[in-house]
Amino acid sequence: MAERRQMGYSVHREILDEGVVDEMAEKSDSKTSLSEKAKKSMRCSGPKLKSCLLGSIPVLSWLPRYSIRENALGDLIAGISVGIMQLPQGMAYALLASVPPVFGLYSSFYPVLIYFLFGTSKHISVGTYAVMSVMIGGVTERLAPDSNFMIYDNVTNSSIVDIISRDAERVRVAAAVTFMSGLFQILLGLVQFGFVVTYLSEPLVRGYTTGAAIHVIVSQLKYTFGINPMRYSGSFSLIYTVLEICSLIPQTNIGTLVVSIVAIIALILAKELNAYFSKKLPVPIPVELLGVVIATLISWQVNLEDKYGVDVVGLIPSGLQPPVLPTSSLFGKVIGDAFALAVVGYGIAISLGRIFALKYGYKVDSNQELIALGLSNSIGGIFQCFAISCSMSRTMVQESTGGKTQVAGALSAIIILFITLWIGTLFEDLPKAVLAAIIFVNLHGIMKQFMDIPALWRSNKVDMLIWVVTFILTVLFNPDLGLAAAIGFSMLTVIFRTQLPTYSLLGQVPDTDIYRPLEDYNQVKRMPGILIFRSSATLYFANAEMYQEALGKKSGIDITKILSAKKKLEATRKRHEKKNEKKAAKKNAVDMEGEPEREEKKDIAIIKMDDEPDPSIPRAIVLDLSPVNFLDTVGVKALRSIWRDYGEIGIEVVLAGCQIGVVDNLQTGGFFNDKVTKSCLFATVHDAVLHCQSARTHSQDELMYSEISATHL
Amino acid sequence: MAERRQMGYSVHREILDEGVVDEMAEKSDSKTSLSEKAKKSMRCSGPKLKSCLLGSIPVLSWLPRYSIRENALGDLIAGISVGIMQLPQGMAYALLASVPPVFGLYSSFYPVLIYFLFGTSKHISVGTYAVMSVMIGGVTERLAPDSNFMIYDNVTNSSIVDIISRDAERVRVAAAVTFMSGLFQILLGLVQFGFVVTYLSEPLVRGYTTGAAIHVIVSQLKYTFGINPMRYSGSFSLIYTVLEICSLIPQTNIGTLVVSIVAIIALILAKELNAYFSKKLPVPIPVELLGVVIATLISWQVNLEDKYGVDVVGLIPSGLQPPVLPTSSLFGKVIGDAFALAVVGYGIAISLGRIFALKYGYKVDSNQELIALGLSNSIGGIFQCFAISCSMSRTMVQESTGGKTQVAGALSAIIILFITLWIGTLFEDLPKAVLAAIIFVNLHGIMKQFMDIPALWRSNKVDMLIWVVTFILTVLFNPDLGLAAAIGFSMLTVIFRTQLPTYSLLGQVPDTDIYRPLEDYNQVKRMPGILIFRSSATLYFANAEMYQEALGKKSGIDITKILSAKKKLEATRKRHEKKNEKKAAKKNAVDMEGEPEREEKKDIAIIKMDDEPDPSIPRAIVLDLSPVNFLDTVGVKALRSIWRDYGEIGIEVVLAGCQIGVVDNLQTGGFFNDKVTKSCLFATVHDAVLHCQSARTHSQDELMYSEISATHL
Repeated sequence: MAERRQMGYSVHREILDEGVVDEMAEKSDSKTSLSEKAKKSMRCSGPKLKSCLLGSIPVLSWLPRYSIRENALGDLIAGISVGIMQLPQGMAYALLASVPPVFGLYSSFYPVLIYFLFGTSKHISVGTYAVMSVMIGGVTERLAPDSNFMIYDNVTNSSIVDIISRDAERVRVAAAVTFMSGLFQILLGLVQFGFVVTYLSEPLVRGYTTGAAIHVIVSQLKYTFGINPMRYSGSFSLIYTVLEICSLIPQTNIGTLVVSIVAIIALILAKELNAYFSKKLPVPIPVELLGVVIATLISWQVNLEDKYGVDVVGLIPSGLQPPVLPTSSLFGKVIGDAFALAVVGYGIAISLGRIFALKYGYKVDSNQELIALGLSNSIGGIFQCFAISCSMSRTMVQESTGGKTQVAGALSAIIILFITLWIGTLFEDLPKAVLAAIIFVNLHGIMKQFMDIPALWRSNKVDMLIWVVTFILTVLFNPDLGLAAAIGFSMLTVIFRTQLPTYSLLGQVPDTDIYRPLEDYNQVKRMPGILIFRSSATLYFANAEMYQEALGKKSGIDITKILSAKKKLEATRKRHEKKNEKKAAKKNAVDMEGEPEREEKKDIAIIKMDDEPDPSIPRAIVLDLSPVNFLDTVGVKALRSIWRDYGEIGIEVVLAGCQIGVVDNLQTGGFFNDKVTKSCLFATVHDAVLHCQSARTHSQDELMYSEISATHL
Repeated sequence: MAERRQMGYSVHREILDEGVVDEMAEKSDSKTSLSEKAKKSMRCSGPKLKSCLLGSIPVLSWLPRYSIRENALGDLIAGISVGIMQLPQGMAYALLASVPPVFGLYSSFYPVLIYFLFGTSKHISVGTYAVMSVMIGGVTERLAPDSNFMIYDNVTNSSIVDIISRDAERVRVAAAVTFMSGLFQILLGLVQFGFVVTYLSEPLVRGYTTGAAIHVIVSQLKYTFGINPMRYSGSFSLIYTVLEICSLIPQTNIGTLVVSIVAIIALILAKELNAYFSKKLPVPIPVELLGVVIATLISWQVNLEDKYGVDVVGLIPSGLQPPVLPTSSLFGKVIGDAFALAVVGYGIAISLGRIFALKYGYKVDSNQELIALGLSNSIGGIFQCFAISCSMSRTMVQESTGGKTQVAGALSAIIILFITLWIGTLFEDLPKAVLAAIIFVNLHGIMKQFMDIPALWRSNKVDMLIWVVTFILTVLFNPDLGLAAAIGFSMLTVIFRTQLPTYSLLGQVPDTDIYRPLEDYNQVKRMPGILIFRSSATLYFANAEMYQEALGKKSGIDITKILSAKKKLEATRKRHEKKNEKKAAKKNAVDMEGEPEREEKKDIAIIKMDDEPDPSIPRAIVLDLSPVNFLDTVGVKALRSIWRDYGEIGIEVVLAGCQIGVVDNLQTGGFFNDKVTKSCLFATVHDAVLHCQSARTHSQDELMYSEISATHL
C-alpha cells in the first residue's frame, strides 16, 4: 500500500468534450443491424448441426466416455441410497398431491429415466418435490373435490365419498397439469427463455419455498390428527383450513396422533444420529425406509387400522400402468397452474444444478435443462405421473454417497421399478400419519430459511422485504398466484430503488480530480461558482420530475420565481424603452437635453440593480450523468428543460460522464440542436469543471457587454 | 473552442483507492436515522400551521390579493367563453356517461366552484372530460344495463325499457363512483402520494387518451346512426360493439344520419374559420353553442323527433336537485373503477396544470391538486355529478381569451347555474346526434396524437412501444383495466432496459485517463494484461448471471474449465508430493542420491508447464461499476464470486467508480472481509489501471517465489 502510494497519478492533456473525444478516438459508426444479427444466428452448418444434436441429447456425448473405473462404484452406491429414499418420499408426496401413493412411485421412475437421457446436471436428484406436490394438490382438490363424488350408501343410510372414482379423476387432473407444465417447459426451452429464471432471485426463491412449506405442513395436519377437514381453495384458503382444523381438533383420532408423534420423534432422533455419525459411516442409514418398514410391520401386526381407526395407505397395485393420453378437456382449467409449476420446477432444479456445477467445475445448460424437465414432465404426464423437479435432500444424499453422473439417477429409477413391480404391495398397511411425519421431518431444512430474515436485515433491507413479502403472498394467495404476485413485487422494488434516489451536490476532494458528495465528506471542497449535481439513479419517467425539483432545492435557485421576476423586468424594460423612444422622438422634436438623459440613467440603474449577479447563484451547473443507464424521452425532456430554464437566467449547464448509449439517447431524443452541441458533454466531471472555470470570466465579460449594448440600443 | 483546447488538464496525485479517499476527505459517518427524519417532518409550529391552512385553502391566500385592474376583464371574458362551452360539452359528455344531459350541467357547476376554492392552477378549466365520461359510461352500463329494466308494455304487447328508473339507477351509480374516486383522491393527497402521477409518463398518457378516444367514438356511433346496439362489457367489448354496429347499419335512421353529417361538417367548417380568423377576433366564436342553438331551433320547427324519428335530448328539469348521500351498497362494485378514475382524472389535470404553471411562472402543488380534485368529485358525487377532470379544449380557450386566475372558472360556473335554472329546458328538442357530432369534432386534437408514433420511432423506440402497447391495451381491455396493464407494462420496460445491457471491454483513449468501449472506437488502446469490463446497467438479480457470463465471454476465460484443470493439477501435485515424501522417507532410510532428485525436477517441470502464464489471460480485471445505481444481495454475490473465481486462477479483480451507496451496499452485503478490503475499490478506472500496472510485476515475482517455495517444501 505504502509502495502504491508512492506511485504517481499524473495526467496532462486538453480538456475533452464529447465531440473532441469522438474525433480523437475515431468513433466508429458501423453497427450490426438486427437483420444481420438474426442471419448470423440462423446460419447452419454440418458441425453446428452435430453439436446441436449432441447438445439436445447429452447422454450421447457423455455416456460413451463414461469411465467405469472412476465412477461406477460411486454411482452404484448413490443410486441405491437415493432409490431407497425415493420410495417413502414418493409415497408421502403423493399424499400432498392428493393422489394414491403408488403414483408417487411412478413419478419417481419415468421422469428420472428421461432426465437421465436429456439432463445436463450430473448431481441433482430429479423426482418428486414437496412444493410441486402441494401445488398439484391444490389443483386436484379444486377440480375434483370430495363433494363431486358423493354417493348414497344404503348400509349406513348416509352419503359417503366414492373414493375410487374420485381418485381416478384426481389422477387424471394431476396427469393433465403435469403434461401441460412439461409442454410449457419445452416451449420455453425451445425459444431460449431459460433466462426467465433470473426473475427468481435468491431471496424470492427462499421466501417462496418457505411459504410453500407452510402450505405443505397445513395440508398434512389432517393425516397427523386423523381428522377430515373441509377443503378450501382460492386466496386465504390456508387461514380457513387452519381455523377448520382447530375446530376439528376435539375429533382427533388418538391412535393416529400417537403414531404421528412416535414417528416424528423417532425420525428426528434417527436423523440426528445419522448426522452425528455421518463421518464414520460410508453410507447414511436409510432412516426413512427403516421408518416405513418398521411402521408397516407394527401396523400389520397390531392391526392399527381396524383396532384404532388409523388411516393406512391402502391398496397398492403392483406393476405399471399403460400410457394414457391426458384428458384434453382439462387443459383449459389448469393452464395457469401448469405455467406456475413449469416455472417453479425449473427454478428449483436449475438453482440446485448450478450450485453443484460450480462446485465440480462443469456447466449446466439452462435451456437444455428446461427441455429435459419438460420432456420428463410431459412424458411422465402420459404415464400418469405428477409434476417433478428435484429434491434438495435427495440431491445431498446422492452427492455425499459418491454419485458422480446421471447414472446414479438411472439406477435409483431401476430400484423404484423393482419395488413397484414386486414389493410395493407389502406397504399397504403403512399408516398415512407416518408418511406425513416423513414430510414434516424433511421440511426441517426449509424451515431453517427463516433465519434468512435477520441475515438479510443486516445485509440488504430491500431483499429482506422481498423475502418477507414473497412469504406472506405465498401463504395468503397459495403457491401459484403468490408466485406471480411475488415476481411482480420484486420487479416493483427495482422501480422503487431507482425512483427515490439520493441527490447530492459534489465537491472536489482537495488536490485531486475526484468529486464526492459534500454531505458525506468533511474535507470536500465546493467549487466556487460551479454547482455539481448528481442523482444516484437512472433518469427516467418515474423520477425525472423529482430530478428537476431536487436540482432546484439543492442549488437554492427558485427557477420559476427568477423567471417570472425576469419577465416582469423585461416588461418594465420594454415600457421604459417605449417611453424613451417617445422621449427621444420628443427630444428630436424639441431638441432639449439634460433631463431625459438623467432619467434614462436611473432606468438602467433599476435594471442593473435587479440584474446584479447574486453571489449565491452559480455561474454554471455540471450534471454528473455517470450513474445513468439509459434515458427515455421524459428524461431527455427534463435535461432539455433544465438546460433551457437555467440558460435563460444566464447559468451554463453542462453534462459529464455520459455513457455511449446515453449519448445516443440524447441524440435521437433531440437534445442537441444548433445551440446545444456535443461540446456541452464532457468525459469526466473534472473536465467539465475546468471548462466552466475557463469559460467563466470570458462569458461574464460577454454578458456584461451584451447587457450594455442592449440597454443602449 | 480553440481557446478551450489550449487550456490544460493536468493532475498530479497519488493513486487513490476507496480507503484512502475516505481518509483524505474525512468521510462522515453520521446519518440521520429514520426516526429523526420522521420527527423532523412531524414537528409543528405556529407559522407552519398558518402556512398549512393557507396551503390547504389556497383561495384564502390569493383572493385577497386579487388585482381587479389587472385581471378582472380577462377573467370575465374567459369565464363567459368557457361557460358557453361548458353547456354543449356538459350535455354531450353526459351522453358518454350514459346519464341524462342535465347531469352534465350539474357536473359543470358544483365541481368547478369547489375547485375555485381549493385548486392551485390558475389556468386549467375543470369540468367534464371525454375520457372520464366514457369510463363512467362503462360503469353505469355495466351495473344498470337495459336488461335490468324491462317492463311489459300492454299497448305494443312487447317488452320495453323503463327509461326513467334505468336512468335514475345510472345516476346513482355515477354519483357513487364519482364520490368514491373523490375519496381516493383526497386520501392519496393526504398521504402525499402525488408522485404516483410520475408513473403516467407522457407516451403512456398520450397513448392512453388516444385509446380512450376510440372508445368515445365507438360509444357515440349509435347516436350518429340512430341505432340501438346491444351493450357489451368487459375485455374486447369494443370489438363486439363495432361488429354489432356494423350488423345494425342497415337499420340506420336516415333522418338522424343526415343531422349528424350536417352537424359534423358545419362544426368542422366553423372551427376552421375560427382558427383562420383567430388573430383578428378578440374572442373566438362560440361554435358549439351556435350549433346547439341552431340545431335546437331547426329540430323544434321541423319537429324532427316525430316526423323523422330523430332521437332528441328530452326532458331537462330546470333547477337544482337536493344533495343525496351516495348509495353505499354500490361502493364495493365500483371500487376498481373509482380508483382508475381518481388516477386518470388527476393525471390529466396535473399534466395540463404543470404546462401552464411553467408557462406563466407559478407553482402547482401536486398534493393540493389531488385534494382539490378529490373534494370536487366527492362533494360533486353528493350532488349527483359525474367525475370530472379538466378539458384540454376549454383550457385553451380560457387561456387564449385572457383568463388569468381561477375566477374565470368560478364565473363559468355561474353561467352554467344561470342556464340550468332558467334556460336549460329550451334545449329539450336538441337532437342527440348533434351532441355526438360535438364530441367527434372535439376529439380532433386527441386524434392528432397518432402522429406521436413516427416521432417517437425516431426519438426513442422503447417509448414508442409504450405508446403503442398502451393504446392497444386501452382499446382491448377498456380504459380502467387497460390503464393498469399499461402502467405495469411501462414499469416492465425499465426492467427490460436494464436487463439486457450492453457489455463492453474498455480501452484507453491514447494519452488520456479516459476509457471507452473498444468496439465503439477505432483509436482506443487495449491495456496490456489488464481487462476493463463495464455493463451499461445496474447489476441486480435480473442480470447478475448474465454479467458473469458476459465477463467470461468478453475476457475469453472459461473459468470453469480452468478451475477444473487446476483442480486436476492440484490432485496430481498432491500425488507427486506424496510420492516424493515416500521417496524422501526412503531416501532418508537408504541414504541414496541422484536418481530421485532428477524425477522431482521432472515433476516440477510438469507442473510448471501447465502453470505457465497464458499470454491471452490478463493479470488483472477492472470492473467499472460507475453505471451501477444500487446492488442487491444477488449483485453482491455475483461480484464476490467473480472476485473469488478469478482470484483462484491468479487474476486480481478490482472495482472502480462505485458510488457511495454502492459501497454501502457492498459493505452491508458482506463483500469485504480480511482479504477483500476497500483497497480493491478505486475512485476512477485510471486509478485502478495504474494500480494494476504497478502491482503486476510485483505480484508476479511474489507468485513465482511462492511457487518455488511450495514445490521445494
